Amino acid sequence: MTSSMMYQNLTIGSLIDHAQRFHGNTEIVSVETTGGIVKTNWSEIGSNARRLAAAFDKLGIAHGQRCATIAWNNRRHLEIYFGVSGSGKICHTINPRLSPDNLQFIINDAEDQILFVDYTFKPLVEKIKDQLHSVKHFVLLNGRDQVDDDCGDWLFYDELIAGETPDYLWPDIDETTPSSLCYTSGTTGNPKGVLYTHRSTLLHSLGGNQPDGLNISAKDTVLPVVPMFHVNAWGVPYIAAANGCKLVMPGPNLDGQSLATLISNEKVNLALGVPTIWALLLDALQKGDFDVSCLKRMVVGGSAVPESMITAYGDQFGAEIIHAWGMSETSPLGSVNQPLQKHMVLSDAEMAKVRTSQGRPPFGVDLRLVNDQNDTLEHNGETSGNLQIRGHWIVDTYFSKQSSSLTDDGWFDTGDIATIDEDGFLVIRDRSKDLIKSGGEWISSVAIENLLTGHPQVAQAAVIAARHPKWDERPVAVVVKAEDQNPAESDLLDWLSSRLEKMEVPDKVVFADALPLGGTGKVLKNQLRDSYQDILMQ
Amino acid sequence: MTSSMMYQNLTIGSLIDHAQRFHGNTEIVSVETTGGIVKTNWSEIGSNARRLAAAFDKLGIAHGQRCATIAWNNRRHLEIYFGVSGSGKICHTINPRLSPDNLQFIINDAEDQILFVDYTFKPLVEKIKDQLHSVKHFVLLNGRDQVDDDCGDWLFYDELIAGETPDYLWPDIDETTPSSLCYTSGTTGNPKGVLYTHRSTLLHSLGGNQPDGLNISAKDTVLPVVPMFHVNAWGVPYIAAANGCKLVMPGPNLDGQSLATLISNEKVNLALGVPTIWALLLDALQKGDFDVSCLKRMVVGGSAVPESMITAYGDQFGAEIIHAWGMSETSPLGSVNQPLQKHMVLSDAEMAKVRTSQGRPPFGVDLRLVNDQNDTLEHNGETSGNLQIRGHWIVDTYFSKQSSSLTDDGWFDTGDIATIDEDGFLVIRDRSKDLIKSGGEWISSVAIENLLTGHPQVAQAAVIAARHPKWDERPVAVVVKAEDQNPAESDLLDWLSSRLEKMEVPDKVVFADALPLGGTGKVLKNQLRDSYQDILMQ
Repeated sequence: MTSSMMYQNLTIGSLIDHAQRFHGNTEIVSVETTGGIVKTNWSEIGSNARRLAAAFDKLGIAHGQRCATIAWNNRRHLEIYFGVSGSGKICHTINPRLSPDNLQFIINDAEDQILFVDYTFKPLVEKIKDQLHSVKHFVLLNGRDQVDDDCGDWLFYDELIAGETPDYLWPDIDETTPSSLCYTSGTTGNPKGVLYTHRSTLLHSLGGNQPDGLNISAKDTVLPVVPMFHVNAWGVPYIAAANGCKLVMPGPNLDGQSLATLISNEKVNLALGVPTIWALLLDALQKGDFDVSCLKRMVVGGSAVPESMITAYGDQFGAEIIHAWGMSETSPLGSVNQPLQKHMVLSDAEMAKVRTSQGRPPFGVDLRLVNDQNDTLEHNGETSGNLQIRGHWIVDTYFSKQSSSLTDDGWFDTGDIATIDEDGFLVIRDRSKDLIKSGGEWISSVAIENLLTGHPQVAQAAVIAARHPKWDERPVAVVVKAEDQNPAESDLLDWLSSRLEKMEVPDKVVFADALPLGGTGKVLKNQLRDSYQDILMQ
Repeated sequence: MTSSMMYQNLTIGSLIDHAQRFHGNTEIVSVETTGGIVKTNWSEIGSNARRLAAAFDKLGIAHGQRCATIAWNNRRHLEIYFGVSGSGKICHTINPRLSPDNLQFIINDAEDQILFVDYTFKPLVEKIKDQLHSVKHFVLLNGRDQVDDDCGDWLFYDELIAGETPDYLWPDIDETTPSSLCYTSGTTGNPKGVLYTHRSTLLHSLGGNQPDGLNISAKDTVLPVVPMFHVNAWGVPYIAAANGCKLVMPGPNLDGQSLATLISNEKVNLALGVPTIWALLLDALQKGDFDVSCLKRMVVGGSAVPESMITAYGDQFGAEIIHAWGMSETSPLGSVNQPLQKHMVLSDAEMAKVRTSQGRPPFGVDLRLVNDQNDTLEHNGETSGNLQIRGHWIVDTYFSKQSSSLTDDGWFDTGDIATIDEDGFLVIRDRSKDLIKSGGEWISSVAIENLLTGHPQVAQAAVIAARHPKWDERPVAVVVKAEDQNPAESDLLDWLSSRLEKMEVPDKVVFADALPLGGTGKVLKNQLRDSYQDILMQ
């Protein structure tokens, strides 16, 4: 038989083609690094992406080479996403919150050819510039007239693309070709790169944006607060292009006040980010006088959301908190908390409980639990096990590594300890290395942290395993007090005692001014362990 | 570099895997051909699909062979969809409304090995059974105790799968392998088969079910009235499995009264079908006393919906009519009418106008207009041209044909005449062969038909080109009067004269008891032309 359906490669270029062709006039709002707001649209984003691709030809950057960004969420960064991948290069997004050593390691490991840098991060790059042997061009993402220092041999993005053609045609690219690169946040060990392909990115966009996924349509105005240097902003730039929504890019201003103003002015109805950001926003909303009635949905990932935050946004602002779970290795969407039909009859309190789960996997990924012998465990909502995942947008082999990171039977082990219920609803109980083993029993640090964060006098909390002469390990809580509050250690221990098994209550609460955060806003528990793991031995 | 993302084939087996694993308890409601309603769920559907696949091994049906169905929308048909394609055979769905000659042609052309037949269609098959040389097994989709005639050498589906294992594992299948086959309705010439692949089906499911596509989630209760023998019920069975919705399968009872009862009893919120069906339902709802407040969305395709029907469902029943366009060759979703953000401010009347368009293409397909010299035309909402389409789920080469059906530059010509506006909103103006060329000017039969259908005394209308001594062709309308109504020809011509250009008003209105319908409910205009094309020459 010679019969066939059309075969087209699933490519990132085809996403921006679609946005230009059918959503050209839809607005992209960009908070600029050097101040002010610029409004552009999908047509211009696409044209500039093509100009950039044409410029690459002149700069001699070849198919498959890495082009890196250290930048905020803004329009030029969006153009680079499509210009780099669309033309067959690899878009390497770098987290500016990494240490200079890690930055240098990553750029050299990726052999980046060109570095696109927001003005904010120029000093950071200047520090290590001499050590970056592969980088041939340093490009600033700001107009020359917007900066006042001497920029030496730095190129300017706007000048680089100015004379180029907006009619550049994307090459046809085999869909299994790499399209972008992101290093894992590296709370332990050297960062490892995940090399996404055109196919994995497109299937993540289509599978992750089903109605029970991110659910982004052309009617939406979407604010991705989650950084574009962090797992491709959870895929939002690609999903936005495929669906023609209005995008609002917050640039460098991620404080509560700035976000509240932007949401209100631009009528944002869907925002995405980590809990830390939404805690800041909640505070600003409660103190200020903002009309954010437009805001209907907030997708939250990166770490667990306390039930108190879900209730606060729902009751006070009418915004639905949608929990999601994933990691760099999973593109990242592994699960999204979208209720089932059977949940529609639940009371508010019962529903809030459902909403604390990390949700269920969209079609395209599969989840399972295994014990340490790799036997699969039941999905009954109670049995915890090592969470493993497989699917169309899950890593197999890390960048430049020789061997697969998968189990013998082809699953990726996430390092999370979780339960899954009959309907696939996932609850992350802990990172496997953050579990506390006390007298042979496992204690979940996450459960204690969630309770502490729900205490009105607590801003942030982390629980670690401290060494103990009798029990091997016992939990110790590190707590940041809420503004103008001064809880005593006994207050917090009493609060926990009435809510936990006796053996789960920490032996000690330590107060700290702040928690050490990694590049993606996650608490660096290894630093806390270094500081406090012997506190019970003294 | 050895880096990689996981590669998994996009297969139909993986859809039912997902439904079983994460939506096993979600209900499938099936109206049975021999009466009554059976309630099952995704877990059982999947188990029976696997049992069927195991039975195929015993029957000696090999990978790639065709297994045909002549059946209503019901649970067994759904199991066959997944059992056949999941195990690597090709599911050939046959339209029972075809003539015995066409049926015989199609079954022999496809070389079907096995025929699954609903009891309703047993007499139809008996007539041609001796001529079906490739078919080795005839299987009835009913319990032996549910039929009272002698069934001779017919097998029974339930008995066929009864002893088989529900643990059958789908083979890994290359995603470009064919999965299902559907012949075009064939209003002209011999029917041609479109051979869908696993990949085209999966990408159609993911791309066509974005929030601006069919938008089916696990919260929905979906009634596919569009037959499973007609372009895979517009992809609903696959989309339903991927998203875990509740399905309500109407079986043979497609009259307004039965559908209204089913919608009300099962709390259907989304129904899909052709305008003829919704006209019958509207009539039943207006005459009866049904609570269909659950019904929120109705997706309509197959032919254009008159504005009057959109308004009636919206105003009287609070149901949104969502226009879609496609054909067998396009899997079928080519466009869906989902408004953009800018439309949200329109008045009801302006919005109703937008809703008469066939909508805009989802990501995954592209549309263009060309003139007869294949020059591309502007998308300005006014210029009409030949509508062409390309994308991941569009036919290239028909079943068992040797040459591509595409243009030299890789587009499929739909045979429709259309306009597309700046935002991609498509309006089908006519089939190219249904246009009327009067004195050198083109007249659209669809525009006249829509106006006539909006007249309160008209049930159905079709407009054809009749030969004319002076103008070459002039429009003639064939009209079926509404029940208990008796409009005069002059009433209808006056109605049209106040709404059309003088030259567009038909020369004649002919009244008929019914319009000749093809297998998919489309008016067979060639039959009308045979009857009436010389009516103005007399």
